[in-house]
Amino acid sequence: MEAKKGVTVWLTGLPSSGKSTLAHALSRELKARQLPIEILDGDVVRTHLSKGLGFSREDRELNVKRIGFVGHLLTKHGVFVIVAAVSPYREARDWCRKQIGNFVEVFVKTPVAICEERDVKGLYKKARAGEIQGFTGVDDGYEEPLNPEVIIETAGESAETAVGKILLRLQELGYLQLS
Amino acid sequence: MEAKKGVTVWLTGLPSSGKSTLAHALSRELKARQLPIEILDGDVVRTHLSKGLGFSREDRELNVKRIGFVGHLLTKHGVFVIVAAVSPYREARDWCRKQIGNFVEVFVKTPVAICEERDVKGLYKKARAGEIQGFTGVDDGYEEPLNPEVIIETAGESAETAVGKILLRLQELGYLQLS
Repeated sequence: MEAKKGVTVWLTGLPSSGKSTLAHALSRELKARQLPIEILDGDVVRTHLSKGLGFSREDRELNVKRIGFVGHLLTKHGVFVIVAAVSPYREARDWCRKQIGNFVEVFVKTPVAICEERDVKGLYKKARAGEIQGFTGVDDGYEEPLNPEVIIETAGESAETAVGKILLRLQELGYLQLS
Repeated sequence: MEAKKGVTVWLTGLPSSGKSTLAHALSRELKARQLPIEILDGDVVRTHLSKGLGFSREDRELNVKRIGFVGHLLTKHGVFVIVAAVSPYREARDWCRKQIGNFVEVFVKTPVAICEERDVKGLYKKARAGEIQGFTGVDDGYEEPLNPEVIIETAGESAETAVGKILLRLQELGYLQLS
């Protein structure tokens, strides 16, 4: 496997849909092949770049665009960037696609009922209890991608299968050469 | 000349001290040698990462730390990052130094009187007229670096001389090999 050029693999989906798990599994596969990897996790980026921003539509869009700005800089220098962020709005994701160019959108399509059952950070519970407002999947919308490069249904497939699917797509698109 | 590893060259100094001019002159020299370069200009970064932040001490520090966060990501992937930002506070610059590791601080030490005479963006004039507040060099302080790797006195030396000085220092520190 050989890196050809940088790319941003953008994992979008509901909270607890499995984005971070997939990001780390994909990262391990690519790192094992000596590719330059950077994971941009929505929560981590929020701490470093978006302190003070809330969860209004405008603030969410700003946060997503900031991830896009950083993804763009890294991608143009040959890095394989893996973004794991809810990124609920189509317009902001499309802005990132345009900005970055080498962009592979992966829709982590896990049904909300399963996400809520997993509830990794206990946030669905809080949202249902009314302790937090504007939570994606509960009282804030998620706009599904219209033409994502990959769709992953984590409810029905293992992380390995999902990662294999993404790697194959990256090869088809010319971002890497699987040996 | 051969790149050895990434580094952030951080140009700090008063507004109109000559940071951007130096950044672009340095960038040209490094690009001519096929090195991967990224200029992070304080104003540009403000647009992309810090919309909504003002010029209070806290907001300025946040802005500088965001530049530091992005500089860190690029540097670790082998990029030569050139930052041109007033970055008036020692603590925030030191935070960036610690975060980034491969960090070369260049103090663009132009006397305030000369900066004000140049007044590239007409901001000193506005600050003197009271139209903008908290302007570094007029009514907000600039904390000079205590141990910068390079000091440039743009009032007395040409951009070429200054760039040569920075290149030599980068070589001394093992970031590049001048042929």
